[in-house]
Amino acid sequence: MILVNGQTKSRVEVLDRGLQYGDGLFETLAYRNDKIEYLEQHLQRLHTDSQRLNISLSKSDLAKLHQELDLVRQNLQDEAVIKIIVTRGVGGRGYYAGQDLSPTRIISSHTLPSYPQHFPKNGVKVRLCQHRLSENSTLAGIKHLNRLDQVLARNEWIDKTISEGLMFDQHDNLIEGTMSNIFIVKSGTLLTPKLNLSGVAGVIRATIIRLASEKELTVVEQALSKTDLIEANEVFVCNSVNGIWPINYIIDTQQSYSVGPITQQCQLWLSQAIK
Amino acid sequence: MILVNGQTKSRVEVLDRGLQYGDGLFETLAYRNDKIEYLEQHLQRLHTDSQRLNISLSKSDLAKLHQELDLVRQNLQDEAVIKIIVTRGVGGRGYYAGQDLSPTRIISSHTLPSYPQHFPKNGVKVRLCQHRLSENSTLAGIKHLNRLDQVLARNEWIDKTISEGLMFDQHDNLIEGTMSNIFIVKSGTLLTPKLNLSGVAGVIRATIIRLASEKELTVVEQALSKTDLIEANEVFVCNSVNGIWPINYIIDTQQSYSVGPITQQCQLWLSQAIK
Repeated sequence: MILVNGQTKSRVEVLDRGLQYGDGLFETLAYRNDKIEYLEQHLQRLHTDSQRLNISLSKSDLAKLHQELDLVRQNLQDEAVIKIIVTRGVGGRGYYAGQDLSPTRIISSHTLPSYPQHFPKNGVKVRLCQHRLSENSTLAGIKHLNRLDQVLARNEWIDKTISEGLMFDQHDNLIEGTMSNIFIVKSGTLLTPKLNLSGVAGVIRATIIRLASEKELTVVEQALSKTDLIEANEVFVCNSVNGIWPINYIIDTQQSYSVGPITQQCQLWLSQAIK
Repeated sequence: MILVNGQTKSRVEVLDRGLQYGDGLFETLAYRNDKIEYLEQHLQRLHTDSQRLNISLSKSDLAKLHQELDLVRQNLQDEAVIKIIVTRGVGGRGYYAGQDLSPTRIISSHTLPSYPQHFPKNGVKVRLCQHRLSENSTLAGIKHLNRLDQVLARNEWIDKTISEGLMFDQHDNLIEGTMSNIFIVKSGTLLTPKLNLSGVAGVIRATIIRLASEKELTVVEQALSKTDLIEANEVFVCNSVNGIWPINYIIDTQQSYSVGPITQQCQLWLSQAIK
C-alpha cells in the first residue's frame, strides 16, 4: 500500500523536489505484533531533521502522518516495514525553494526482509566497504534522501552470505553500516562513532545510548578507527527493522568475534523497551 | 511537457530509486534558435557519469533519449530549458540495486528563466554561501541527484538582486556557484577550481577549457582560495542556460570587478562555438 498526501497512489509528481534534488527525509519503521515500533521516536526524529533542513513540517502535517499511518496499519495482515518519506514539496525555481512550499507525505508498506532467525543470536558476517562517506557537519546525522553513498557502498558486493558492509569516512574513521549504526565493546565500555561529520543518527542507536545510560553501562560517542574495530571484544550493528545483529566475522580483517554479554544485555534491554 | 520513459506523464513511481535515494543523474540544457545547445556534450556527460555510478544506460537508452528529445522539441514554441533525469530505475532491495534494473528516463521542458539581458554584458552581484560542499572523490564532478548541498546554499538568501552564491568545500577551497561553475583571471591566466573532491563538472566549463586551450589562452585547473578570488582581475560564472555571467561585485568581501577582456573573449568564443 502506498499513500501520497493521504491518497492511495503509487506515483509522485516528477517536479517533486524529492526526485529533483533528493530534497527530503525518510524513516524506516518495523510493524510487528500489531504495533509500529518506536513510532513516536521516529516522528520526533523526522520533525527534528525537517527543522535542520528548514522543511516546514507543521503540527498539522504530523497529525496527518499519524492518521495515514493508522490507515496503512489497518490494511496490514502481517509484519511489515513501513517507510515514511517527507519531501520539501513540489516546485520552487531551481534549487531555490521559497517559503510557501507544502511538504509531500509518502507512506509505503513493504514485506519485512526475510533474514535468518539466528542472526540476532549467532551474529552475522560483514565486510568493509571501499566507498567512503561524504563529510558535512550540516547534513551529518540527518536521515535525508541523498543516499548515493549508501547505494554505492551496498552495491560493492553480491555475496548473500555477507549481511552488512561497514563504512568509513574520508579520514578513515569507522562510522556505520550501509543500513545500520554500529557499536563496539572495549574493556566493558560501549563505544559508538560520533556522527558530527557524517552518518545517520538512528532511532535504535539513540535508544541503546539512552538505555545503557539508564542502566549505568558506560556508553561513549567518540571517533573510532579500524584498529578500534579490530581490538574490540564485541561488535554489533543495529537498526529499526532488524534490532541488534552481533557481528561474528569481518571478512577483510579475518577477525572473528563472539557474541558477548554486553551485546546480549543490549538485546534484552531493547526487547523490553519495545514491549 | 513531461515524458517518462517516452510516455506523456507528470508522475513517476514512488518506488523509483531517484526519489528513494537520489540514485540518478540529470542534465539541464538550453533550447534556443531551434536548437538544443551542446546536446551531444550533455548526452556524452550523462553517459560518462552513468558509468561512474554503474547505472546501466545502454546505447538503446541513449537512442530513446534522442527520440524523446526530438518529440519534446517539436512541442516547444519558444526558447526553453530542457531537463533530463536518468535514474537507476524502480526497485531493488533497499540500497541494493542488483543487476537487472532498467533506468528511468524523464524529460521535462520549462520556461527559460527571465534574467535581465544586461547580465552577460554588465555582470552580476553575488554572495558567498555559508553552507559547505560535501567532499567525496567518487562522487566529485558527477551531476547526480544528491543536491541537498546546493538546495541549502541557494536558500540562504531571498534578495533577488543577488544572482548567484559561491560555494566552498570543507577545506575553504572555492569550488563553484550553486548553479554554475566559476573561473577567475589572474595575470592573464584563466583559472578554475579542480573538481577532484566536490563540485559538478559542467558542460560549459569543459567547453571553455577546450576553447581556451585551442586558442592558446593558458587555462589551469587548480585549488583556489578566497584570497585568489579577492585578488582576481576578472571573475565569471557559467552554465548551460545562462552562458557566461561576469561577476561585478561580491557582497561579503565588498569587492568590485570590471568585466574584463578575457571574460569577453570567452563569451565571444562560446557564442561562436554554439553556432
